[in-house]
Amino acid sequence: VTRQAVFDHIAAHRDEHVARLQEFVRQPAVSATGEGMAEAVEQVADYLRQLGCAEVEIVPTDGHPSVFAYYDAGAPKTIVNYGMYDVNAVDPTEWERPPFSGDLVATAEFPSVLYGRGAFFAKGPYRAWLNALQSIISVEGTLPVNIFFVVDGEEEIGSPHFHQVIERFAPRLKTADATLSLGVAQNRSGDLSIFLGNKGFLYFELEASGERWGYGPAGGSVHGSVQSIVDSPAWRLIHAVSTLTESDGRTVRVAGFLDHVRPRNPKDLALLQNIADRLAGVDMRTIIPNAAGPGRVQRFVDDLDGMALLERYLFTPTFNIDGLYGGYIGPGSPTFSLPDRVVCNMDIRLVPDQEPEEIAAKLRRHLDLHGYEDIECRVISSCTWAKTPSDADIVQASVRAYRRLGHEPFVWPLRGTGGPWYLFNRVLELPTLKDGGLGHGRGFHAPNEFLVIEGNDRVGGLVECEQSHVEVLYSYAAYPDDYE
Amino acid sequence: VTRQAVFDHIAAHRDEHVARLQEFVRQPAVSATGEGMAEAVEQVADYLRQLGCAEVEIVPTDGHPSVFAYYDAGAPKTIVNYGMYDVNAVDPTEWERPPFSGDLVATAEFPSVLYGRGAFFAKGPYRAWLNALQSIISVEGTLPVNIFFVVDGEEEIGSPHFHQVIERFAPRLKTADATLSLGVAQNRSGDLSIFLGNKGFLYFELEASGERWGYGPAGGSVHGSVQSIVDSPAWRLIHAVSTLTESDGRTVRVAGFLDHVRPRNPKDLALLQNIADRLAGVDMRTIIPNAAGPGRVQRFVDDLDGMALLERYLFTPTFNIDGLYGGYIGPGSPTFSLPDRVVCNMDIRLVPDQEPEEIAAKLRRHLDLHGYEDIECRVISSCTWAKTPSDADIVQASVRAYRRLGHEPFVWPLRGTGGPWYLFNRVLELPTLKDGGLGHGRGFHAPNEFLVIEGNDRVGGLVECEQSHVEVLYSYAAYPDDYE
Repeated sequence: VTRQAVFDHIAAHRDEHVARLQEFVRQPAVSATGEGMAEAVEQVADYLRQLGCAEVEIVPTDGHPSVFAYYDAGAPKTIVNYGMYDVNAVDPTEWERPPFSGDLVATAEFPSVLYGRGAFFAKGPYRAWLNALQSIISVEGTLPVNIFFVVDGEEEIGSPHFHQVIERFAPRLKTADATLSLGVAQNRSGDLSIFLGNKGFLYFELEASGERWGYGPAGGSVHGSVQSIVDSPAWRLIHAVSTLTESDGRTVRVAGFLDHVRPRNPKDLALLQNIADRLAGVDMRTIIPNAAGPGRVQRFVDDLDGMALLERYLFTPTFNIDGLYGGYIGPGSPTFSLPDRVVCNMDIRLVPDQEPEEIAAKLRRHLDLHGYEDIECRVISSCTWAKTPSDADIVQASVRAYRRLGHEPFVWPLRGTGGPWYLFNRVLELPTLKDGGLGHGRGFHAPNEFLVIEGNDRVGGLVECEQSHVEVLYSYAAYPDDYE
Repeated sequence: VTRQAVFDHIAAHRDEHVARLQEFVRQPAVSATGEGMAEAVEQVADYLRQLGCAEVEIVPTDGHPSVFAYYDAGAPKTIVNYGMYDVNAVDPTEWERPPFSGDLVATAEFPSVLYGRGAFFAKGPYRAWLNALQSIISVEGTLPVNIFFVVDGEEEIGSPHFHQVIERFAPRLKTADATLSLGVAQNRSGDLSIFLGNKGFLYFELEASGERWGYGPAGGSVHGSVQSIVDSPAWRLIHAVSTLTESDGRTVRVAGFLDHVRPRNPKDLALLQNIADRLAGVDMRTIIPNAAGPGRVQRFVDDLDGMALLERYLFTPTFNIDGLYGGYIGPGSPTFSLPDRVVCNMDIRLVPDQEPEEIAAKLRRHLDLHGYEDIECRVISSCTWAKTPSDADIVQASVRAYRRLGHEPFVWPLRGTGGPWYLFNRVLELPTLKDGGLGHGRGFHAPNEFLVIEGNDRVGGLVECEQSHVEVLYSYAAYPDDYE
């Protein structure tokens, strides 16, 4: 295998590769509004045809279509590759440049970045992955593995119909050996992370309404001055929700909530301990994904740090209040209102082996047992967990590849956030590796998103990103042998 | 006293009187936005000058000005009369006609109504009151009582500065014998109500924030997936608020909350029993003020009705949740957020002898004792109660006047909603009668507000309204003797 020849090809075609990223990012594809979706799906299908997939199909779903494609390399191993072509919605007033400009700009930290919605998540990295494959094919004539491509058009709205695609192609997809989806996975210090799985989630709304209860107001609010003689759905919701946890807001009181939490696996604990050791002395608030948003975490619960913090983070389910609303929602002058309905948006993140249906049923039973039969629990979205063992070939081959490139990856046994990976891991029953890839980006679901095109002494740029994908692919194709 | 001559004068000048109402309503006076306020206060001062007040003063406050005036009739008795010249804000898109049109229109129920913001609350009735006084003066040369006029410009925003006016003129106002403020007080069945007092209120916001707590996120929300390791201000608020009442949402657990609730007075109970007897068989949802808003009350607490309902309504404090908000406040797709601050808007309506400061202190102590020192309690507005005994001259004279006009009024010992009446009743220490007056209007704080100009077989129109004010004034001037 002429690995160096492929690497050189990528370096030599850098400008052309960058141009493909720009072109892809400049095509809006906002699944939440539909903007640009029809053009974007054709663009993705074209990309896969240009790569040399003999079979490329735009797959209708009950929502935005997906794309399915197959590249037959005549190789012994086959992977399923997940991609997405939609992007998060934008409010252009929050952006310094037009969100779909796809401009190349220099920043204080990086000589060149690609600016725009989707540059980092996930169009830029997806096009980089296709560029890497294109370079392999240009040099070698074909790929070292066969690839099933599935490209979701509704990731940003929770992938509500993507299962239809997986179900339709399941008999063929199940014949693959693993799922591999590469992106850019370095944090700002250069640490590279790969994830062996993710938590599931159950997102729901609890609503107390006079209408369902039969007491209190219905059809709208009444004046607050009658509260002495009119029952209050707001008080009802407060009291119902307060039964769900102890006053710490973390100890869940729903009977059987933890029944199916899988005992911690020594291999997982060792992986986590390794990460904790390497991060000793680092402020973990800079490490935990999503611990910074618009706001910042002041301190972790119980002032946890290190291994104890990581264990609590990944192996404990969450029970979060995402929002609360009802009645007069705004500051300032008094507005006397006895609202007829109030809502609490909540989500539970599930660890293996908790299932969304199981937890939803236990939650319903809890509410009923406490006399809250009238409180509606509307499941808005749910997704179960995924988990691949650390000794799976795809994991070991990837680790070996990154080491060869001089990077010792953080191998996270689980990830705190979810996605439709259970479709690959638990429906198709494939070892599933999520993320990986040198490179760095910022602005996930935020304004002024960018992908680093030319890296610095800590993180790789586009060339290093594409080269790392080549390394992983060849490493997996040869595994358990080393290649070269 | 030539009562009939004044009545005839009112009837003969009906069109002219209607025109004054139209003129007043057509002048916008929105205290919340300031629209028209400068012109409106001059208009009111002019009205009082035209009436013959030797002393008329526009009184600056820290907000919109008030008007003070004095009519010296050389009479033995003096009243303080409260009025307001501001109106509630309007959203013209919700109105069938321009809100300040002051048009006269026919409806299915009434041959003629005056349409517009303020027509009912409270410009129409205020101008009707001035019309009545004008007719007395025209016929008799002067009034049967001396009158201090005070006209608030901020009633609709909670009268935040009106106390400045009362304090400034207190030495003179305290020399009066009673406060009398007449409006239109018939419900759609024709029942006329007068009120001997009103509940006080304490309106406040409880806020849990990571910033003050020192735990959880600060400066904005973080992603909900970190809830297993990041404390939640939303859970904290839920648990804190849940300690305030039993699960019924009515039995208040704040220590000493009911300590100063005055024992029920047999005279008050007799008044209430009289109302309950007269309303036997009537759906009380049509009677309790504010039991209908945008929504409707389905049933009252504990399925109370009649006397038991009225007692609970008026002699029990309320503890209402007016609104709840924090994090993602909207339905639909999942938005994973661990909010850094959540707010609960609440109001407590106080019965005699509960005081807002006392209750605010007890609430603070409750939160502290339960470990919620960090939960902020921001008092937005408060007002204490007012209460006049039923045997006060102003009450007895009014009842006598309405009986003479063929109406047996409902004498309510208290009113469920508040207002700055404590300034008259408890600061000036005057017997204070609120409302009264034949006539009917609709659309309080709502679109398509109107005042009935020509009544039907149940409610009086403008002429009957003005005549009833004349009757009350003469009745009070002569009391305890009958006049004529």
